[in-house]
Amino acid sequence: MERRKNFFSHLPPYASRLLSSARVAHLATADARGRPHVVPICFAIDGDKLFTPLDAKPKKRAPLKLKRVRNIAANPHAAIVVDHYEEDWRRLGYVLLNGKAKLLCRGARHRRAVRSLKAKYSQYRAMDIDDSPLIAVTVEHGYIWISNPAK
Amino acid sequence: MERRKNFFSHLPPYASRLLSSARVAHLATADARGRPHVVPICFAIDGDKLFTPLDAKPKKRAPLKLKRVRNIAANPHAAIVVDHYEEDWRRLGYVLLNGKAKLLCRGARHRRAVRSLKAKYSQYRAMDIDDSPLIAVTVEHGYIWISNPAK
Repeated sequence: MERRKNFFSHLPPYASRLLSSARVAHLATADARGRPHVVPICFAIDGDKLFTPLDAKPKKRAPLKLKRVRNIAANPHAAIVVDHYEEDWRRLGYVLLNGKAKLLCRGARHRRAVRSLKAKYSQYRAMDIDDSPLIAVTVEHGYIWISNPAK
Repeated sequence: MERRKNFFSHLPPYASRLLSSARVAHLATADARGRPHVVPICFAIDGDKLFTPLDAKPKKRAPLKLKRVRNIAANPHAAIVVDHYEEDWRRLGYVLLNGKAKLLCRGARHRRAVRSLKAKYSQYRAMDIDDSPLIAVTVEHGYIWISNPAK
C-alpha cells in the first residue's frame, strides 16, 4: 500500500512501467446511492492527476449527460485500475488509484492535459478534443499488486 | 440499453462474442459510503449470473478480507465491464453489467461455477479452487456500446 502526497512521484519500476505503457484503464464511479459504474478509459497522467476526455469517441449521449459525469457531480469519489493481463498468471499486475474526480472544461490545466493526451494517443491528434470536457482525478492514494513480487 | 429478465439470453452477436472471448473483466464495487473500488477479474457466466473466484491468484489478504468482499457485504451493488481495446478506435466496444453481488462458498451452484471457471481457464485446473469462495453477481441489466454500430 502506497500513501503519499503525490503517489506518482515515488513509484516502483514495475508500477511506473505499467502506468506509462498502458493504453486503457478502467474508471469506477458511484452514484449518490453508492451504486457503482465502470467504463474503460483512455488517460494521461500529469502531476498528481489523471485525465480522461469525455467525448473523443462516438457516444450516444451528450458528454455532460454520461453516467460517469452525473455520478461525479453527485459523488466525487473515483477509483481507477491500470492492469496487465496475460495467460501466464505469474505475470499479472495492477495499479489501483483512488481519488476525487471533477469536470475540467477550460484553462491552462485543461490545455496541458489535452497536450498530454495528444502526445500519448495519435488518435486524438486527428480529433477535435481541444474544447472537450475532461474528467480530472486527483489521486489521493494508490495500491500496487503484482502476482510475482520478484519482478 | 438492454433490460431483460436474463440479459445474457438475448445478446446481439457482438456482445455475445465479446463476453465469450474476453479473458478478463473489471469489477466495480463500492463501500457503505459510496466510495468505489475496481479490480480486474477472471470470470465465468452461467445463467443470469457472473462468477469470479476470490483466491485463485496470490493475494496478500485472506480472501474474505479483500476490499471487494467487504464492500459487497456493506453494499451489494456491483458493476462489471467487459471490453475490447485496440488502436483502431473504430473497433472498440464494451458490455456493462449491473447487478447485485454476494459471496458463494459451497453448494451445487458453487460446484457448477467452479466447473465453468475450470473449463474456461486451464490455469484454474492446476489450482485448488474447489473450496474457494466466489463472488456471484446476479445481472439485472446491461448496456452495450460499440464504436462502430455497423459491426
